[in-house]
Amino acid sequence: MATSAKKYVYFYGFGKANTEGDQTMKAILGGKGANLAEMSNAGLPVPPGFIVSTEACAYYSKHGHKLPPGMVDQVRANLGKLEKKFGKKLGDPENPLLVSVRSGAAVSMPGMMDTVLNLGMNDRSVEGFIRSTGSERAGWDCYRRFIDMFGDVVMGPTSGLEHEHFEHELVRIKRKYKAKEDTDLTATQLQEVVEAYKKVYQSKVRKPFPQDPFQQLMLSIEAVFNSWDSERAAKYRQINKITGLLGTAVNICTMVFGNMGDDCGTGVAFTRDGATGEDKPMGEYLINAQGEDVVAGIRTPKPLEEMPNEKDPMWTKAHSELTKIMQQLEKHYKYPQDVEFTIERGVLWMLQTRNAKRTGLAGVRWAVEMATGKDVVTGASQPKVLTPKEALMIVSGDDLQQLLFPVFDPAHEKKAEEVSRGLPAGPGAAVGRIVLDAAAAEAAVKADPSAKVILVRHETSPEDVGGMWAAQGILTSTGGMTSHAAVVARGWGKCCVCGAGGLEIDYAKKTVRSGGRTLKAGDWISINGSTGKVYAGQIPTMPSPVIAGVEGRGKGATQDAVFRMYDQISKWADQHRKIKVRTNADTPADAVRARAFGAEGIGLCRTEHMFFEGERIWAIREFILADTREGREKAVAKLLPFQRKDFEGIFKAMHGLPVTIRLLDPPLHEFVPHNPKEQKEMAKRLGVSPAKVASRVQKLHEFNPMLGHRGCRLSITYPELCVMQTRAIIEAACNVTKRKVKALPEIMVPLIGTKAELDFLDAIIRRTAEEILAKRKVKLAYTVGTMIEIPRAALTADEIAETAEFFSFGTNDLTQMTFGYSRDDIGTFLPDYLEQKILPEDPFQSLDATGVGQLVKMGVERGRSSRPGLKCGICGEHGGDPASVKFCARAGLDYVSCSPFRVPVARLAAAQAAIKG
Amino acid sequence: MATSAKKYVYFYGFGKANTEGDQTMKAILGGKGANLAEMSNAGLPVPPGFIVSTEACAYYSKHGHKLPPGMVDQVRANLGKLEKKFGKKLGDPENPLLVSVRSGAAVSMPGMMDTVLNLGMNDRSVEGFIRSTGSERAGWDCYRRFIDMFGDVVMGPTSGLEHEHFEHELVRIKRKYKAKEDTDLTATQLQEVVEAYKKVYQSKVRKPFPQDPFQQLMLSIEAVFNSWDSERAAKYRQINKITGLLGTAVNICTMVFGNMGDDCGTGVAFTRDGATGEDKPMGEYLINAQGEDVVAGIRTPKPLEEMPNEKDPMWTKAHSELTKIMQQLEKHYKYPQDVEFTIERGVLWMLQTRNAKRTGLAGVRWAVEMATGKDVVTGASQPKVLTPKEALMIVSGDDLQQLLFPVFDPAHEKKAEEVSRGLPAGPGAAVGRIVLDAAAAEAAVKADPSAKVILVRHETSPEDVGGMWAAQGILTSTGGMTSHAAVVARGWGKCCVCGAGGLEIDYAKKTVRSGGRTLKAGDWISINGSTGKVYAGQIPTMPSPVIAGVEGRGKGATQDAVFRMYDQISKWADQHRKIKVRTNADTPADAVRARAFGAEGIGLCRTEHMFFEGERIWAIREFILADTREGREKAVAKLLPFQRKDFEGIFKAMHGLPVTIRLLDPPLHEFVPHNPKEQKEMAKRLGVSPAKVASRVQKLHEFNPMLGHRGCRLSITYPELCVMQTRAIIEAACNVTKRKVKALPEIMVPLIGTKAELDFLDAIIRRTAEEILAKRKVKLAYTVGTMIEIPRAALTADEIAETAEFFSFGTNDLTQMTFGYSRDDIGTFLPDYLEQKILPEDPFQSLDATGVGQLVKMGVERGRSSRPGLKCGICGEHGGDPASVKFCARAGLDYVSCSPFRVPVARLAAAQAAIKG
Repeated sequence: MATSAKKYVYFYGFGKANTEGDQTMKAILGGKGANLAEMSNAGLPVPPGFIVSTEACAYYSKHGHKLPPGMVDQVRANLGKLEKKFGKKLGDPENPLLVSVRSGAAVSMPGMMDTVLNLGMNDRSVEGFIRSTGSERAGWDCYRRFIDMFGDVVMGPTSGLEHEHFEHELVRIKRKYKAKEDTDLTATQLQEVVEAYKKVYQSKVRKPFPQDPFQQLMLSIEAVFNSWDSERAAKYRQINKITGLLGTAVNICTMVFGNMGDDCGTGVAFTRDGATGEDKPMGEYLINAQGEDVVAGIRTPKPLEEMPNEKDPMWTKAHSELTKIMQQLEKHYKYPQDVEFTIERGVLWMLQTRNAKRTGLAGVRWAVEMATGKDVVTGASQPKVLTPKEALMIVSGDDLQQLLFPVFDPAHEKKAEEVSRGLPAGPGAAVGRIVLDAAAAEAAVKADPSAKVILVRHETSPEDVGGMWAAQGILTSTGGMTSHAAVVARGWGKCCVCGAGGLEIDYAKKTVRSGGRTLKAGDWISINGSTGKVYAGQIPTMPSPVIAGVEGRGKGATQDAVFRMYDQISKWADQHRKIKVRTNADTPADAVRARAFGAEGIGLCRTEHMFFEGERIWAIREFILADTREGREKAVAKLLPFQRKDFEGIFKAMHGLPVTIRLLDPPLHEFVPHNPKEQKEMAKRLGVSPAKVASRVQKLHEFNPMLGHRGCRLSITYPELCVMQTRAIIEAACNVTKRKVKALPEIMVPLIGTKAELDFLDAIIRRTAEEILAKRKVKLAYTVGTMIEIPRAALTADEIAETAEFFSFGTNDLTQMTFGYSRDDIGTFLPDYLEQKILPEDPFQSLDATGVGQLVKMGVERGRSSRPGLKCGICGEHGGDPASVKFCARAGLDYVSCSPFRVPVARLAAAQAAIKG
Repeated sequence: MATSAKKYVYFYGFGKANTEGDQTMKAILGGKGANLAEMSNAGLPVPPGFIVSTEACAYYSKHGHKLPPGMVDQVRANLGKLEKKFGKKLGDPENPLLVSVRSGAAVSMPGMMDTVLNLGMNDRSVEGFIRSTGSERAGWDCYRRFIDMFGDVVMGPTSGLEHEHFEHELVRIKRKYKAKEDTDLTATQLQEVVEAYKKVYQSKVRKPFPQDPFQQLMLSIEAVFNSWDSERAAKYRQINKITGLLGTAVNICTMVFGNMGDDCGTGVAFTRDGATGEDKPMGEYLINAQGEDVVAGIRTPKPLEEMPNEKDPMWTKAHSELTKIMQQLEKHYKYPQDVEFTIERGVLWMLQTRNAKRTGLAGVRWAVEMATGKDVVTGASQPKVLTPKEALMIVSGDDLQQLLFPVFDPAHEKKAEEVSRGLPAGPGAAVGRIVLDAAAAEAAVKADPSAKVILVRHETSPEDVGGMWAAQGILTSTGGMTSHAAVVARGWGKCCVCGAGGLEIDYAKKTVRSGGRTLKAGDWISINGSTGKVYAGQIPTMPSPVIAGVEGRGKGATQDAVFRMYDQISKWADQHRKIKVRTNADTPADAVRARAFGAEGIGLCRTEHMFFEGERIWAIREFILADTREGREKAVAKLLPFQRKDFEGIFKAMHGLPVTIRLLDPPLHEFVPHNPKEQKEMAKRLGVSPAKVASRVQKLHEFNPMLGHRGCRLSITYPELCVMQTRAIIEAACNVTKRKVKALPEIMVPLIGTKAELDFLDAIIRRTAEEILAKRKVKLAYTVGTMIEIPRAALTADEIAETAEFFSFGTNDLTQMTFGYSRDDIGTFLPDYLEQKILPEDPFQSLDATGVGQLVKMGVERGRSSRPGLKCGICGEHGGDPASVKFCARAGLDYVSCSPFRVPVARLAAAQAAIKG
């Protein structure tokens, strides 16, 4: 069996000639193991050892905790090789080898799985250790540490043995000898501790402490395997969305000792600053200590830069060797590294290296500096390690995004009182006084423009936009990532937390309760739209330097540097991406801002607000109440001049770039008041009976408005709406054309499900447009197309493309209907779904490639089958999500469109998709 | 050009040797033309002629009213052939040929398109006509009729000339000569009429009446083509859902004259009675008349059976010849015929034959009698014309359906006052007093079991089922064909009209207004659930004899005959169909009834009512209010014994047949009261504060409940629900198994969108079931499967089938989500959509094969790709729609499931699908 067995164990150490594997083999060797092999290949001083692969763990997990055939023999053979080459034997009574046994999955899961140090210690090898090292105290200390760790980690889960049981004995013996610290215990006293520990072990495990070092090793390996399936590890993977791993690898490494005296030590170091991104090695070390002491925080480590100042000159040498290796590693990995090292009697050993963690700022700075070879702040030279292409690949959309929004001062946020948590619906940080209705928010800011309010609602509706705009941020107790509040807030770059289900908002009493805490309207509150956290009180915020830069404001040196970094990344991105990036913008102001962020057109101009603002709502209400077509035409005619002017502004802002305008989409009941008082006002103003208003409103009520009388269905029932909007668009285009503005309107019909719907409206739009163009004698390149947001539209895209000149995938609604999820109601079950791993992510945030994605691909392919070269884009909220942008590029879309503040992220993601190919 | 031209003109008459085309060529020759050719082929006396094809009409329509190349030459050549063979020439001054020019599309559109008779008349040929026929009066009469018809039909649309303009002159001349009837005018006076008509013509058309007969012919052919595109014809096709036709053909037929004297006549006849289906020729004739006189109703025709009694013995001969031809035609067409005939001077000519129209009863009777060769009432022998297979193909689902429901007495319905119209949601007829709330309906019938009420509501909800059951019928002002009211009513076979949008229901005033009419609660109302019409007052109804037969009641001879017919058709259907038919049934009573109708299992047992009935609602309300899992488990435990008993009854009723049980589907807010008063009662009864109830209810509110927290999502949040239902099912199965009942439960998880959802619940269901089966030591063949009702489920059916043991396509929800239509709200735009032909039909009634059908096929194919032989069925309302059943058979489904009353229709449709192949 062993002869034909699969390879489960890989050797490393003693340079490239003796090492099996490299950094590309993370899936099988784990991150730690692959990097150890890689460092060994590079000739770096790595304590040698071998790795039991993740495939062995997967087998073990799958086969009811049985080790795979041949693995034990392979471990034995590799151990033999290690002993031979290192010149020490495990359990040897003269010069024993000690090893550590560490977990290491392909993705780092710090602290989640188990480690055993000093393995190989037994009653005989402890003597050999003492003889060979000359340190009696170190020998007994290592032995007692090993019994403790082995007992706790390896035998604990089945026997109930815990670290505390040993600690109890240690405390007893320390008290007996009046020792204050562990280090106060003498070698003999530590020997007494060992004996006490062995008794503790025996009493719990009901077997003596194992003296056979190979048995110790195999039990430890199994313990690491078991820890992969432990509840806490499973939970960690779930929270961090770590999926698709085989299991953990197990690294068996030769122990080196930082605790053999004052020429020994241990530490951790980073090649660059992970917070600011500054190009300066950072780290900490402890003299005469083992790694766990650094972690445990018993002693305070010294900063790395002090190492050359130690008395013993060997430290200067070690420091210079370490910094050289760190530079070498960064160059090798093309990414800043986080290393662990140990110095044993003056000899430096590298225990681990991995990509360093970082803030968004640091990520962007590293990318720019490593590719330009120049410090963005000081201008100092650095090694040029990356090409711009490579630099683009090490920045994430989240990194870039972090630069675009104000953030809380982290020190203050840490101390703030968290009162609730919702969905991070609109990134950034906002502070203000609680206001519970939109009108009040608007009024407060009107009265005092410097007033800061947070609008807190169960949910928001289009009637609330005034108050939402006036507020610093929006907090809702229901609704998901694409609820009204979320979509509107993101469009404006405004901070928003949605679906904070723990909040009980009492509009009547004007209170917001959460847990035991009651906040009142007027109380200060702070919301973090990037994390979804809600705090009582005011937390100081810091503004985004990029926004200032983009808008031509902000002059400070750091701010300039941050803006320059953003700008450099964006420029590189534009050089590489193939898919265009447009924006969702409804007003000239949004359009201007998006253009400054690099948008190449408007992919979605919603026209809803053109019906709501100010006096306009009265026209549409009159329309709704009209009993005849003539009455309706008269009412909508009042909107024409307003909307024409809106479009003129937008065309001007987007001069020369395409503007996709969506015809009216929401159901009519969003335009009427639902409470009797306002209905009475409406009746009075429009000169009808309150009963008529009430009856009309009641008739507009729908059980599922999302699936109701909206989108193109409105224009089919009331073609006069479509005519008026077409007039406004085409007349505006004519007007600006005469002022030398190049308008490129793309008229988009929403919610198409059948070709016949589009044919009906396409005819009306073209007839209306052609009449105007003929009369005005203007040549205009306008097109008529449709949203693909209903599953049936994707399924019949070949038919629809016979009429549609372009497609824009409305992936919000497409996701709603493909999953059967109402984005306004998903909050009731989404948290359970994410927790139970039934969904990997909120499908409204990141496009579901498996299901919804099939319909997008189908739509593109079928659409182009009947209209080759059909222009296809996406205008759902997914247009700003990096993973979704990459999907769109693969699916062959021509552009993505997202809210102005996500344009930079989309540009980057598009470039990454192109580079990845 | 003419040499290579396409064939547009087809000759017929003078037997098979001279005839081009036959009845299979309806698409090109039109129904009338194809049948004339067919009769000519059969050697029947058909006035010869030729047909201009529908392809010519299509060309004309498409090319801006230009005749296709070569057509004129072909018409000329065929006219020449006709003149030569018939021995008369068009416009001949000696012995002129007259022709009729008639429209005739592939589908009959009675009266919708134009006809010109007596073509060929002019100033010279009228003399020839008189000479050759010897009838001066007939000559001038034909001429004046021709000018009138040609002027009105051919020149009217462009000149404004109308029949009335001629009529005016006729009246003037009649008055002048004191003639009472047209027939009182002498030949000379008619000649004066001709002159007057020619002046009328000239004054409007501004050209003299055309004397060139070929010009007359070509203008008439174009007029028929133009009439195809006329508004009324387009409207007719739209209303009658006639699509896919090329255009109309034009039949140019030799005129024969029934108005040449007393040995002449004309008439129409049916080979069998189209109302009762009785095998007895029926018809009417007029002596000395043209066909239009029969239609115009100026003279009263005599019944056909009187013809042999006429004095002139030629009539006896003609009658015997006609009845012989009619038998021949019925045998030839294998379907009862509707013929037109003319007798010219003792010679019988067949002008037209076509399949006869009929009632549902007649359709079924024809099929049975023509295939058994036996009168179902008298037992008398008949020719056996059809095989059972052929018989199945001439019956429609609607025919069969008509036998299953009570109907209004047609004579009374005609006279009743129609007050509104809605959707025909539950077939049948119902009469009762208006009741505006469900509780009142229940109370009324409880107080007096013979009380008849109609429940009239804006819409119904599951709380209303008691009152719905008590009512004779249900009428709603909102909601579509698959709204709650419609689905529940059809399930019970109860009469229901939905979405009667014209009704204004005022619950407070207890009135129902429609147009100007106000009805009060307590007033009598009658509703026709087969047509959607609503009448004020009481209309007498007639019961269904089939139901009585199926249920073993009803003894009358006619009733027995009707039942025997139904039974015969159903038995033949079962011999031929391949797809199984199950039923949607939620109670033992429904299950028993459906089994009597031939259901082969339950395809959908909804469990909602098991949570509503009586005391049970309090348990589910307690569940909803519970804050902990323990509390919820305690509450649902109360439902277990009830539900177990429900399932026992259903298993018993379906002994040996599979029962698919759907786990709880509706959102929880359907179980809680929404008005403060009832909420207070609920709070009191469950011992909590009213505020808590109100707050919980508010949290359950959803914007789009259809896309909200329901279906499997409920069981994922509250697994205790799924556990309880599984317990009830499996324990019930164990209990009945011990009583020798064979239970075959199929546990169906609703609303699955991802495999992970099903995996989660499948594990719970199996664990729960296995525990019970092990404990009870029962072997039970249960399966776990899922509804495919979410687009994403169909798209990922391959993944889902790895876990699901069966699929049931829930095409109601699948249609909702694929189209993005809420079935409760579709009433607001569906009428516009049907009128504008944007949808060919209500997609909730007949499955949309183009869009939704793609997902069904995809689901079946992908599901079986990962689980070969996967059992697939359909349980939406479409399971009872014939066209949808045929689609399901083609898509490879194993069964359809429909409400009990639609089982017979589904059996027939399944057989028709199998026969069609």
